[in-house]
Amino acid sequence: MQLKVVATLVYRFDHETPVIVAIEPARSSDQTILSDRLLIDQPAELIRDEDPATGVRRFRAVLSGQVSIQYQGVIDNGARPFLQAGAHQHAWAELPAEVLPYLLPSRFCPSDSLMRFAQREFSDIEAGGAKVLAVVDWLQEHVDYVHGVSNAQTTAEQTFIDRAGVCRDFSHLGIALCRALNLPARAVSVYAAELNPPDFHAVFEVFLDGRWWLVDPTRLAPIEGMVRIAAGRDAADIAFLTSGSLCQCLSQWVEVTRVEEEPAEAA
Amino acid sequence: MQLKVVATLVYRFDHETPVIVAIEPARSSDQTILSDRLLIDQPAELIRDEDPATGVRRFRAVLSGQVSIQYQGVIDNGARPFLQAGAHQHAWAELPAEVLPYLLPSRFCPSDSLMRFAQREFSDIEAGGAKVLAVVDWLQEHVDYVHGVSNAQTTAEQTFIDRAGVCRDFSHLGIALCRALNLPARAVSVYAAELNPPDFHAVFEVFLDGRWWLVDPTRLAPIEGMVRIAAGRDAADIAFLTSGSLCQCLSQWVEVTRVEEEPAEAA
Amino acid sequence: MQLKVVATLVYRFDHETPVIVAIEPARSSDQTILSDRLLIDQPAELIRDEDPATGVRRFRAVLSGQVSIQYQGVIDNGARPFLQAGAHQHAWAELPAEVLPYLLPSRFCPSDSLMRFAQREFSDIEAGGAKVLAVVDWLQEHVDYVHGVSNAQTTAEQTFIDRAGVCRDFSHLGIALCRALNLPARAVSVYAAELNPPDFHAVFEVFLDGRWWLVDPTRLAPIEGMVRIAAGRDAADIAFLTSGSLCQCLSQWVEVTRVEEEPAEAA
Amino acid sequence: MQLKVVATLVYRFDHETPVIVAIEPARSSDQTILSDRLLIDQPAELIRDEDPATGVRRFRAVLSGQVSIQYQGVIDNGARPFLQAGAHQHAWAELPAEVLPYLLPSRFCPSDSLMRFAQREFSDIEAGGAKVLAVVDWLQEHVDYVHGVSNAQTTAEQTFIDRAGVCRDFSHLGIALCRALNLPARAVSVYAAELNPPDFHAVFEVFLDGRWWLVDPTRLAPIEGMVRIAAGRDAADIAFLTSGSLCQCLSQWVEVTRVEEEPAEAA
Repeated sequence: MQLKVVATLVYRFDHETPVIVAIEPARSSDQTILSDRLLIDQPAELIRDEDPATGVRRFRAVLSGQVSIQYQGVIDNGARPFLQAGAHQHAWAELPAEVLPYLLPSRFCPSDSLMRFAQREFSDIEAGGAKVLAVVDWLQEHVDYVHGVSNAQTTAEQTFIDRAGVCRDFSHLGIALCRALNLPARAVSVYAAELNPPDFHAVFEVFLDGRWWLVDPTRLAPIEGMVRIAAGRDAADIAFLTSGSLCQCLSQWVEVTRVEEEPAEAA
Repeated sequence: MQLKVVATLVYRFDHETPVIVAIEPARSSDQTILSDRLLIDQPAELIRDEDPATGVRRFRAVLSGQVSIQYQGVIDNGARPFLQAGAHQHAWAELPAEVLPYLLPSRFCPSDSLMRFAQREFSDIEAGGAKVLAVVDWLQEHVDYVHGVSNAQTTAEQTFIDRAGVCRDFSHLGIALCRALNLPARAVSVYAAELNPPDFHAVFEVFLDGRWWLVDPTRLAPIEGMVRIAAGRDAADIAFLTSGSLCQCLSQWVEVTRVEEEPAEAA
Repeated sequence: MQLKVVATLVYRFDHETPVIVAIEPARSSDQTILSDRLLIDQPAELIRDEDPATGVRRFRAVLSGQVSIQYQGVIDNGARPFLQAGAHQHAWAELPAEVLPYLLPSRFCPSDSLMRFAQREFSDIEAGGAKVLAVVDWLQEHVDYVHGVSNAQTTAEQTFIDRAGVCRDFSHLGIALCRALNLPARAVSVYAAELNPPDFHAVFEVFLDGRWWLVDPTRLAPIEGMVRIAAGRDAADIAFLTSGSLCQCLSQWVEVTRVEEEPAEAA
Repeated sequence: MQLKVVATLVYRFDHETPVIVAIEPARSSDQTILSDRLLIDQPAELIRDEDPATGVRRFRAVLSGQVSIQYQGVIDNGARPFLQAGAHQHAWAELPAEVLPYLLPSRFCPSDSLMRFAQREFSDIEAGGAKVLAVVDWLQEHVDYVHGVSNAQTTAEQTFIDRAGVCRDFSHLGIALCRALNLPARAVSVYAAELNPPDFHAVFEVFLDGRWWLVDPTRLAPIEGMVRIAAGRDAADIAFLTSGSLCQCLSQWVEVTRVEEEPAEAA
């Protein structure tokens, strides 16, 4: 599917502040960047980082005052398969070494705390894709999608207690439960078609059958319409903007539209 | 300095449990493994992982029942420089990309929460090594070394409140404060000569002047006598043993002794 | 001082919900209710509770849909003395039994956690009023008055970490520190003249020299212009509205104005 | 039932420390103190407090060094009825005013956080005794009785996450869930016959049908063999020993034995 993305962040920095920004889609093998560009409304020297293993792109800069950062791109996100119940769960011994960190607890996904709950609650479900789908069903049944309950510091523990949150919280709790079940899981930021209202979206990925599978525990947007931005242990790793001192997000605006592909010319 | 290390862990697993174990010193450029071996008192197939970038070694296995794991080694740990106040603090733009994750909050080092405190408390201290040394001084002055206050789930937030903990807690709070000051910091597990009583030891490293520097915020053991095992974001990454389900540590035993080097034969 | 108070709360209840409301000033010996009334814009049977010991007034009702609750009153709040550094701190043995609960940790004031910090930080300050004034100075120096950092579930532990909050948070941390210093302290809700913008205000009281003293750790409003509503262990006890199920506060509006007292007629 | 109780606490205080001790059974209407005495192995002036409303007894003292405090008593604990499913749940409007505080969140029972969970999980259960019994069944099914997971600072939130704890934790979570369901609940410390190993025991009470009912969520000791000590919002209110600075519990020892009542002499 070809998707056009326009995303705008407006921030205020009280003084010169170093930032790391991750709003450009990853150059990963599952999607193709057809064209894109980045616009910043103040002169800034950008350091560009692209992770050779994952294709995740970030830039570093020093910003001050009020700044608008805009990303524009057209991406072909390929064909995103939907996780199947039968997908094979690997024994730890079978996992690629680079996947192991995604078994561990992280800032917002303290899976160590939830191990007793998770291993009891999901003990009857078959290992593999079925287990992940059961986690997502559990989230749908037990957690309400509500704005205002959580904030930027909310962990999966808190969401487990509150039983309410937004996409970020659903993903953190989903990731924590998967890791507590010995399933590698990581956070992914995406641009998502048909998300209403349009916004940045947080989902997660699980590693089964030798590959990562996208899962949206909120079920608010179709997997097929997602453009992957960054992946990491949790929101701390995939923040749109990480800053060296307190700053203020004045607004964010996202548009994702499907590009009608022209039919191939008949000969 | 040449050091002989013997470390023994005894665990009980109620059923077949996958584990990841990190008790072998890293094959990093700052230390030389002269000889070593690993002894497990039950037949187990080991998957060996060695991180090409850092030389950190881990092994994976599936264990059950009561198991004793012993590491024996002789290591030349080279010359470990002591962090100087004048060590240069890099702007984010100057940092190697692989150092950036150590600026971010993690499971036990939620530096995002402590940013307001850290930036106010240490605002008058010059950037760089002096800032890190001021953090260590602060820990010495404000936190008591006490057993029994903290446990395996204690975060730097909790230690900041409790004002008491052990080596792991001192390091987590030190790391969190450094990151909150925009300084890359990571957790390091070590074998330490002259630690009394002998035990695994947790310290941390900061990235200044283009390299990582070892810091012991407890000041319980000299930097020169340390053998580095694993490095990571916090205790979750460098645990001696990570297991796929609840298990019990029955005992751990560590001996680190200085090997008297034979004087070079006079010709 | 004579003060006219008008306070309006508008809530939405999705279904019939029991509530306890504490917005009427206490009939305590330190203030005189000259006239007042309560207006609710739906028929409701009110159960009135007045604590014989403290004069705190609450009413119970069952409400549903959108409801506006208004309090109007004129109160003479007498003369409120300002806490002096020399006020005597009682040994526990000297305290009236009914004051003892205010030494204990509570929902939002977990003073047990902060005992090590408090007893170290304020060890050099003389016991009594001076200690409380030092706690307030500490709050002024180390905590920023900022909206949006805290919410209805924020505890003094979290504010101690965040170093930011609003009047409720300043009071909770002040209370927790006093209790950790063996000083009885309790939360008090007030109407406050000259608070800008006008709003409900949360302050605290300490027990010294045989009586309770009002303290405003935010220093946003003068003690002399305060009308006491409820007192309790923390915000849980003195909430304007406690409801039996989740509900929504649509708006709250408070006006406190000084009534010019007519000069006594010259004979 | 007549019960003989001997309880010994040994503490160490580094310097003169004020304490409040609650180890003497309450002089409440549901039990009769046939004889008792208190032994302290250092000279100490005791201030005795007895709550006129509940008969709960506490003493205050200033202690230093190593101190042994022993209580000895013979108590007839009457007939303790077992909570019935049909016990009537009062509307808030029907409750005695002094019961209302037990609807509110407290230090270790933050019922406000668990409201969404509790009201969803137990929505199908009939109000009243049945609801409380369902909470106890839920605790039995979802929480493991395990030593070492919790400590003196563990809240019901943490136990809800950990799914493990001891009698104190079971009671705190039971209380928090009851309050989140609009049921008044309070913590009670007891001496319990047939508890194995013998120890202080923490249970809770709910207010239904116009009276308080004892409930043991651990099901480790029979209600009939319990002698009530103190009641309060949670462990903070009913601690055996509350001290004004950090101290160390060296040992505690409890014996509860049934006294064979002599048959009445035939005339």
